[in-house]
Amino acid sequence: MKPEDRFVEKLRALLPGSDAVLGPGDDAALVHRDAGLLAATTDLLVEGVDFLPGEDPERLGRRAAAVNLSDLAAMGACPEFFLLSIGFPPDKGEDYPLSIARGAIARAGEFGAQLVGGDLSAAPQTVVSVALWGRPAGPPLTRAGASPGDVLYVSGHPGEAAAGLRLARQRVAGLTPEQERRLLDAFHDPLPRIALGAELSRQRLATSAIDVSDGLGVDAARLSRASGVRLVLERSLLPASEALRCFASRAEIDPLELMLSGGDDYELLFTVPAAQQGRLEERAADFGVPVARIGRAEEGSGAVLSDGGAERDIAGLGHDHLEAAR
Amino acid sequence: MKPEDRFVEKLRALLPGSDAVLGPGDDAALVHRDAGLLAATTDLLVEGVDFLPGEDPERLGRRAAAVNLSDLAAMGACPEFFLLSIGFPPDKGEDYPLSIARGAIARAGEFGAQLVGGDLSAAPQTVVSVALWGRPAGPPLTRAGASPGDVLYVSGHPGEAAAGLRLARQRVAGLTPEQERRLLDAFHDPLPRIALGAELSRQRLATSAIDVSDGLGVDAARLSRASGVRLVLERSLLPASEALRCFASRAEIDPLELMLSGGDDYELLFTVPAAQQGRLEERAADFGVPVARIGRAEEGSGAVLSDGGAERDIAGLGHDHLEAAR
Repeated sequence: MKPEDRFVEKLRALLPGSDAVLGPGDDAALVHRDAGLLAATTDLLVEGVDFLPGEDPERLGRRAAAVNLSDLAAMGACPEFFLLSIGFPPDKGEDYPLSIARGAIARAGEFGAQLVGGDLSAAPQTVVSVALWGRPAGPPLTRAGASPGDVLYVSGHPGEAAAGLRLARQRVAGLTPEQERRLLDAFHDPLPRIALGAELSRQRLATSAIDVSDGLGVDAARLSRASGVRLVLERSLLPASEALRCFASRAEIDPLELMLSGGDDYELLFTVPAAQQGRLEERAADFGVPVARIGRAEEGSGAVLSDGGAERDIAGLGHDHLEAAR
Repeated sequence: MKPEDRFVEKLRALLPGSDAVLGPGDDAALVHRDAGLLAATTDLLVEGVDFLPGEDPERLGRRAAAVNLSDLAAMGACPEFFLLSIGFPPDKGEDYPLSIARGAIARAGEFGAQLVGGDLSAAPQTVVSVALWGRPAGPPLTRAGASPGDVLYVSGHPGEAAAGLRLARQRVAGLTPEQERRLLDAFHDPLPRIALGAELSRQRLATSAIDVSDGLGVDAARLSRASGVRLVLERSLLPASEALRCFASRAEIDPLELMLSGGDDYELLFTVPAAQQGRLEERAADFGVPVARIGRAEEGSGAVLSDGGAERDIAGLGHDHLEAAR
């Protein structure tokens, strides 16, 4: 278990009985609010840890919004309002936090979420904190609903963001401009999967979901732990894009490592009852992103990669927020 | 206008038409949520800027909760749930963020608010971000409702927290242990005025309110600007406690400067129609804190201190979050 997951376990032990429907430990919290449910999440981004030093402020704002939107996507929730706090070195000037806010307002606005408040503070380096809330489109998705026999899916192309991070740090020759742009965008400006999450919730297609923020390996392990199942990912089914394969080949990295350990993907990993596979595939045009079947849930625990019969434990693969800085 | 207030003005200009009842620029945001209103706020605390380096983590957590609770108090709202994000140097160990969380859970729990989620990140120094929401007890209090003729009140004893900050940095001889404790607590462990705010809202006693977080001077100016009135504070009515007077005398500081410029008080500054003064004073036992009449609202703009006929502009007096670090 990653240090961050251990923290959540210890934290839950501190909490008195709660009125929340779902407290710490999922992508977002769920509480009753009058007639409906409110889904709420927050993410803290620290310069040099969660984003590269000197990041363009508007793009940083877009990213801060996107990572929170992604948490709501994983709950099947439609975003409504957000709060934005910015700590920054005052010598960056008053337009710097405004540019961060502009980016966050634009990105969140694409998904229907409005800025309603926030806070500013001086700080030795930039930190951005967003708190976002919204409303589940249907029965909320959590990490806890997968059953043995369910089919495992992932959206988009995990690993592209990790390739983009490496590209942002050091140029790699031999990629087309389109490939380069695609990988850099995956890292700098991830697209939250709101339409997919909402549709999975509204149509009751998925039994569980998580957003892949820290790596397919560790996030699959989180889903498996919360659901009490074993997740088996099939190597042959993992959707490596051509851009990722080209980058990996030029950079002499195994694309599989980028897919399993990379993090920052903000794709959705979710389970679907075997009987619903047909319905899921009929709906795919509404998701706004391709989805790929990559494995299954079984009795047991843990997360493994199956490769022609051999199995490899992947639960420890991924980024931990308390590990070394970027 | 302080840089933070200028930022809010520029930010509001960026926002498209909003569905919020009240967006950026008050103590908390207000949005419609099913049958009722939701009041939401967030505050970011940065080590060395918003709290002293090396602060005890549990006390820091209490304070992070309290400053957010205070924002809801100023809206007349009862807190319900909160999210907590912590950035910290990993070498502080895993118990460090847990102690911060323990403090926040305890302080918020006293006022009925429960922790439901959050985020962790490595960071070069500690940053704590809380997002808190709740429900107005009656018609919400905002900064915008004061009218000429209203009477101006403040709760507690502004200036004690500023004295406590100075004491925490450097001992001052000649105070009783009780006085020392009182001033240090005012800074380290402020008590949010939830009962007062809720009662002012529920009983429709106040026309406007703000929490005094940055200094009586600048926060009076904010209230005056939002309401479109002039606020006149009477020097002779300002409630300097004995502990504050004793500290100021020993430290050779004018207690008035601590009261007007100090900040970190987390008291409520609010206006009451002259015809409601009697009702307010009858209710005082329910507020959980003494309240003092300190002045009045007039036609005009700005905030001044009246002292035997002479008037002094106090709008610029107070802490700005973008100014020099502690």
